[in-house]
Amino acid sequence: MKNRFLILLVLLSFAFAKAQLQQSTASDSLMMRSIYDHNLTQSKSYAWLDHLSNKIGGRLSGSVQAQLAVDYTLAELKKVADSAWLQPVQVPKWTRGTPEYAYIELSDKSTINVNISALGGSVATPDAGVRAKVIEVHSLKELESLGKQKIKGNIVFYNRPMEPKKIQTFEAYGGCVDQRYSGAREAVKYGAVAVIVRSMNLRMDDLPHTGAMSYGDLPLEDYIPAAAISTNDAEKLHSSLKSDAGLNFFFHQSCENLGEATSYNVIAQIKGSTYPDEIIVVGGHLDSWDLGDGSHDDGAGVVQSMQVLESFKRLDYKPKRTIRVVLFMNEENGLRGARAYAAAVKEDKENHIVALESDAGGFSPRGFSFDASEQQMNQVDNWRQLFKPYLIHFFEKGGSGADVGPLKGNNTVLIGLRPDSQRYFDHHHAANDIFDAVNKRELELGAATMTSLLYLYDKYGVIIQKLD
Amino acid sequence: MKNRFLILLVLLSFAFAKAQLQQSTASDSLMMRSIYDHNLTQSKSYAWLDHLSNKIGGRLSGSVQAQLAVDYTLAELKKVADSAWLQPVQVPKWTRGTPEYAYIELSDKSTINVNISALGGSVATPDAGVRAKVIEVHSLKELESLGKQKIKGNIVFYNRPMEPKKIQTFEAYGGCVDQRYSGAREAVKYGAVAVIVRSMNLRMDDLPHTGAMSYGDLPLEDYIPAAAISTNDAEKLHSSLKSDAGLNFFFHQSCENLGEATSYNVIAQIKGSTYPDEIIVVGGHLDSWDLGDGSHDDGAGVVQSMQVLESFKRLDYKPKRTIRVVLFMNEENGLRGARAYAAAVKEDKENHIVALESDAGGFSPRGFSFDASEQQMNQVDNWRQLFKPYLIHFFEKGGSGADVGPLKGNNTVLIGLRPDSQRYFDHHHAANDIFDAVNKRELELGAATMTSLLYLYDKYGVIIQKLD
Repeated sequence: MKNRFLILLVLLSFAFAKAQLQQSTASDSLMMRSIYDHNLTQSKSYAWLDHLSNKIGGRLSGSVQAQLAVDYTLAELKKVADSAWLQPVQVPKWTRGTPEYAYIELSDKSTINVNISALGGSVATPDAGVRAKVIEVHSLKELESLGKQKIKGNIVFYNRPMEPKKIQTFEAYGGCVDQRYSGAREAVKYGAVAVIVRSMNLRMDDLPHTGAMSYGDLPLEDYIPAAAISTNDAEKLHSSLKSDAGLNFFFHQSCENLGEATSYNVIAQIKGSTYPDEIIVVGGHLDSWDLGDGSHDDGAGVVQSMQVLESFKRLDYKPKRTIRVVLFMNEENGLRGARAYAAAVKEDKENHIVALESDAGGFSPRGFSFDASEQQMNQVDNWRQLFKPYLIHFFEKGGSGADVGPLKGNNTVLIGLRPDSQRYFDHHHAANDIFDAVNKRELELGAATMTSLLYLYDKYGVIIQKLD
Repeated sequence: MKNRFLILLVLLSFAFAKAQLQQSTASDSLMMRSIYDHNLTQSKSYAWLDHLSNKIGGRLSGSVQAQLAVDYTLAELKKVADSAWLQPVQVPKWTRGTPEYAYIELSDKSTINVNISALGGSVATPDAGVRAKVIEVHSLKELESLGKQKIKGNIVFYNRPMEPKKIQTFEAYGGCVDQRYSGAREAVKYGAVAVIVRSMNLRMDDLPHTGAMSYGDLPLEDYIPAAAISTNDAEKLHSSLKSDAGLNFFFHQSCENLGEATSYNVIAQIKGSTYPDEIIVVGGHLDSWDLGDGSHDDGAGVVQSMQVLESFKRLDYKPKRTIRVVLFMNEENGLRGARAYAAAVKEDKENHIVALESDAGGFSPRGFSFDASEQQMNQVDNWRQLFKPYLIHFFEKGGSGADVGPLKGNNTVLIGLRPDSQRYFDHHHAANDIFDAVNKRELELGAATMTSLLYLYDKYGVIIQKLD
């Protein structure tokens, strides 16, 4: 009899738990529908992006535009947050200058103009430019086998393309970007006078794509100029070298490292009603490269993050936990904002349970990548069905984002939004990263998807378990 | 003992079946990797689309360009197919003519120019244009309540926008397109002199989007001119009417119905080695509207379908079943090609086991929609995992495509490729449906995804069961 009663009790409690779960799922489903509806009809994200892109423009760290973006986003966030403030950060200041130009000079003295752009952090060429013979390589390692004898006095041309077979284009980027970041530093060791790097772009076009490079520990006097060349022109240089190995390459650039400047992370939050000390961060980076207006990288992530607060506010949702937006400064060429923010979190012993970054473009959202434990992934798996009506299907373990990366540890779940990546590198760091390349609905769907995930984390918290 | 032996036998046969399944899945996985690799590195689809779009252009049924497209695709298909042929089809011939122009004339006689385009099949305005007062409505039904008294002698302006809350934009289109297709026919009954229809476009911009309309059974003398107006201008007209209900709208268009012309479906196949009578069809439609060059609608589907044959050929895959490409003529304004093809299939008693259409743009593929039985869906469910590395996740029951629709019945599995739909209606039937709006990789991924699914159907056949 006692057993029977126990069994009944267990069954009843199962049924009760199941009913609760169903009820909860139904209310989550309704809340998410409201979030998507709001975003698709009344979002401010597109208008914010229009301002950032078209009224302000490219926002290189330390530039006037970066400061305008700080002022603008702070003012806008104040309208939707409980509080908003700036965190000062020292950032490197680098300026492109003009003009930038380049050509291939064939042995018969005829020339072919090509499109280049200085890599971020590069030194200028001498006033008269650089003119030298070209050694084409496909990896840093190849320099070794060529040796000083073949490289000295020449321009090294890194021409390994992004791997088109990769379905996720960020993997193709990851497999290629060492040429841009470390190409100059390595080539110097073999006596190169400059480096030219094939743009990190899967598309064949005429646009050079800039991006960060580093001289590492090299002494200042060893620095050599480094520039990106468009994919079409990389092919042109390659085929010219095939038929005329003795050609010269000429380029001129006027960029300059101007020391450091004071800039800011922009921070705003809605304080949690029940667990104010459990902080959920959402962010993107406010700085951008200068060739376009940084709409995809990362204006989109900035306005989507702001939109999370706006949506909660307008939907009159009072979060239990603190929802904080952080617009990081200097992701592109230093990560100073991210490091400063993480240092402050550590010093203040703040408890960050979740940190979500959107920095993969304003394209149609597919899901999220989680730097999280298995148990934390199980929690997310329970939410998959809720996202299905919105065609959000990607919930995988993996990386998160450069700016939230320094928050790793203390069981913080680090997350990166994963939009469709096929078009991203067509625009990344190039002159066509502009407002018109962002589709309003895709941007809004991304923000709605982020808001929905953070709503669930706010409601249920995070399962606490040591990271694997 | 006997029982034990039986159990052992059952277990062994399970293990054997499982091992076979694993082996089979492994070989399918490898084959699909080859298909994607080939498509992402050596596909002809983008070059074919370049030719169709930039060398030929918009391919309205009965036009010179439509004929050029027939000739070109037939010649290209002959290079990769066992056989290729034309199926003659009588198609309606309609021509836009020039000029098309329109303006709002306010009560104070000031004017505002707006962008319109004749709907496909519409009659011209009189030479002097149409000038009349405007009645704005949001549905066909609303005409009833307004009645003849309010409508007679006026222009009816249909201004119900696409529903932005729909995640799948085709649903928003479906909920709106009655205004375009039947708006004139209905308005005539109440004495309207013309209709203006808000473009089927989720984006606010200046481009009118044309598309098919029908006068139904109306006598010729009752036909009234019908035009699309851009979304921005629809808003302009709406707000002008708010402040000045007595304004006039003027428009002029010179379009003409020119009877019928002979055109063709283009058909090509690789004959099956084992079951040649089981036919797998893949197709898109060769005709397009005339305002752009029809790159997304449906140049993309055409070249992706051709690419299925090209991939099998280049990968040296010999299909067991017959793989047939059909490039349908006249999807846009008559569906004559699709009907003629289905009629021929019926007459020849051909056995079509699968018919897949790509007619939703050349965007990043997400999966497929199946007009199929539950059991046929179970078969597809087994293949889901194979598509996961390619981020293909959508396998749902639903519609297929306008051109394969007439093949319904006889257990044919009808399928539509489902690319990401967010940007589709930004371009659909408008002047910006052009080659540059198609991303090469997205187009190629779509073709690879189609080829992979058809590879699986070719290898395993279709489960035979009556449709629900």
